[in-house]
Amino acid sequence: MHGVVRQLIACNRRFGPLLSTRLLSNDVTLTKERYPNLSRKEFSPLTDKDVNTFESIVGKGNVLQSDLEFYNTDWLKTVRGQSEVVLRPESTEEVSAILKYCNERTLAVCPQGGNTGLVGGSVPVFDEVVISTARMNKVINIDPTAGVLMCQAGCILENVDKALSQHDLMMPLDLGAKGSCHIGGNLSTNAGGIRLIRYGSLHGSVLGLEVVLANGDVINNMNPLIKDNTGYDLKQLFIGAEGTLGFITAATIKCPTKPNSVNSALIAVETFADCLKILSLTKKHVGEILSAFEFLDLASRHLMLENLELPYPIAESPFYLLIETSGNLHLNITCKEYSQEVMDMIEPYVYDWTRGRDGSISAEHGLVLLVVVELFYVMLPNAVVLDNIEMYYLIPVMQL
Amino acid sequence: MHGVVRQLIACNRRFGPLLSTRLLSNDVTLTKERYPNLSRKEFSPLTDKDVNTFESIVGKGNVLQSDLEFYNTDWLKTVRGQSEVVLRPESTEEVSAILKYCNERTLAVCPQGGNTGLVGGSVPVFDEVVISTARMNKVINIDPTAGVLMCQAGCILENVDKALSQHDLMMPLDLGAKGSCHIGGNLSTNAGGIRLIRYGSLHGSVLGLEVVLANGDVINNMNPLIKDNTGYDLKQLFIGAEGTLGFITAATIKCPTKPNSVNSALIAVETFADCLKILSLTKKHVGEILSAFEFLDLASRHLMLENLELPYPIAESPFYLLIETSGNLHLNITCKEYSQEVMDMIEPYVYDWTRGRDGSISAEHGLVLLVVVELFYVMLPNAVVLDNIEMYYLIPVMQL
Repeated sequence: MHGVVRQLIACNRRFGPLLSTRLLSNDVTLTKERYPNLSRKEFSPLTDKDVNTFESIVGKGNVLQSDLEFYNTDWLKTVRGQSEVVLRPESTEEVSAILKYCNERTLAVCPQGGNTGLVGGSVPVFDEVVISTARMNKVINIDPTAGVLMCQAGCILENVDKALSQHDLMMPLDLGAKGSCHIGGNLSTNAGGIRLIRYGSLHGSVLGLEVVLANGDVINNMNPLIKDNTGYDLKQLFIGAEGTLGFITAATIKCPTKPNSVNSALIAVETFADCLKILSLTKKHVGEILSAFEFLDLASRHLMLENLELPYPIAESPFYLLIETSGNLHLNITCKEYSQEVMDMIEPYVYDWTRGRDGSISAEHGLVLLVVVELFYVMLPNAVVLDNIEMYYLIPVMQL
Repeated sequence: MHGVVRQLIACNRRFGPLLSTRLLSNDVTLTKERYPNLSRKEFSPLTDKDVNTFESIVGKGNVLQSDLEFYNTDWLKTVRGQSEVVLRPESTEEVSAILKYCNERTLAVCPQGGNTGLVGGSVPVFDEVVISTARMNKVINIDPTAGVLMCQAGCILENVDKALSQHDLMMPLDLGAKGSCHIGGNLSTNAGGIRLIRYGSLHGSVLGLEVVLANGDVINNMNPLIKDNTGYDLKQLFIGAEGTLGFITAATIKCPTKPNSVNSALIAVETFADCLKILSLTKKHVGEILSAFEFLDLASRHLMLENLELPYPIAESPFYLLIETSGNLHLNITCKEYSQEVMDMIEPYVYDWTRGRDGSISAEHGLVLLVVVELFYVMLPNAVVLDNIEMYYLIPVMQL
């Protein structure tokens, strides 16, 4: 479950420019001023000779020395480094050569992906050499049968997801910054996102990694096997290590099949205890197809309204749940016994409603079953919104 | 996909005594004789004083010095160690005290769970002190809402699964040895099993571990959080390390909701290419509820017949697939257009068949959809067996 920040990220995906204008206009405090107790260690200062060497490794056009604000400032504009050089390698070999050189010269480095992190971890603290994965954006291979992706670390999450969808596959990861975040950053921060509940953490999805150590040594563990127990699973250490143990240059990721359909419901809930009860009921009744279960409280909702001018489609309530399932939605109504009268009241409404929205119905009827909507029925939410279309009227129809 | 060994394990679960009598009657070669190039390192030999110390830690009754064949011999009876003492601690503190003492005395140790491994990794090679998790079999906590289990390492997989099922939960792991294997052994060997395809590897399911290092230090990382990125994820290193980096004493495991129903199909397939095609189609059409996809070739089938006297319910074929789904089975038939005539032929058959087996039907009809059985229809398997009941006749009915 997540609170305000997650929602703000999600909003930013849709309302980025709005939010940017509002938050990014002021100059950002330097990290070393914001945190005066931090001290720069005994790393060497950058020289012209270093820049020349970098140019010989990655090419002159890929050594940036001006307009570095983007690379020095974090997404929330809370911290700012003072790096004087940004390198944009395009291969593992180039990363290796850079790190080997920096290690020998004791130059501090800062690996950087899409720079979408919210905790200041993706930007330099002082004057580290920024090594950006932006040009390492190649999909190396997609195995449609095994559902295995191999790609470079700089691939943008959404781009990879699109490439996979051509093969009916998807990334096991989805988050608000998907349009700009890099896979390498996702792995280095062990990003969770909204598919965590269904597809688990990256520790379970990553089959292999290619990593360059600080001295330039390359560890190639790009295993495409779904399961491999040969030796210690060292690659796991780099997941979530934020680049401190090595620079992830490529990854092999197990990708699930893209679901045929996705359904979402927004529910207003009176108490936190009821939220937990709904979580249990949801897992019980639609556990196999449950793909997301997100939580929001009233304060967060107010923040969204005040800061983002995003009104909520349902009435005020202490808590809200956003539930997503992948697969067909089973809309079953529970009654004490079979009633043709109830049927005659419900079916035309549901059919008309769905047809009016170009939906598709495969009705299950004639049996009294416990299924999805019983949940909403039993838990008495204020209202239910499916796929952002209001369904205020469905609940009363069901409360026969 | 797995071959002979997996099937033999699965058979052993049902036909253990039969197999045992057949394979276990001969004396087993000592490991040091089978692998003469292995040399015992400079560990101390066991003394009476050591035994007395162990008795003071775990109690006299839990220091075994006779009838140690079970602890010295692996399940397949291919290797045999010569340990003279087996310790059965019941707590982390006792494990810590044992390891601290052994470390100081340079006594070699061999952690042991249910001793169900098939590669000789669970038994001593020479005269190591065996530390069995057999008495560390307590379920510490089950959180039904979060779906999180905390248990000691010696819990038997099947027992934990039963305890979880009281809360509509299940272990994300299932394997042939579940009736005797220990969770600690599952974790130390990173066991995969038949739920791997659905619930992923243990690296994704383990939320926390408690581990005792060789010097007796206890690392307590029994995190119940579904996701925690604080610091390096060191616990991942112990998963699959086979006890060489530390002794796992307890674990926190994320457990999925128990599915409402499980359906299985056994299919005979002509070519390996078709097996892969069926895998793709299965993932595409029932990906969200696909829980197992197992592979067997004709040679394995013959082995099962010859060694276990297990005849196969379907005709000879080069390959076989065992497919399991968790969730409702959608039995839809695809036609070019809606036909009442086709309906009238299919429905009574399916209803009668299901009713005759105490099944439950929630029929979807009136619409032409692509669903599960279309797969078998399209791929033209020789026969389909659902839940081990022959359905030879269903296929012809569908091939209208």
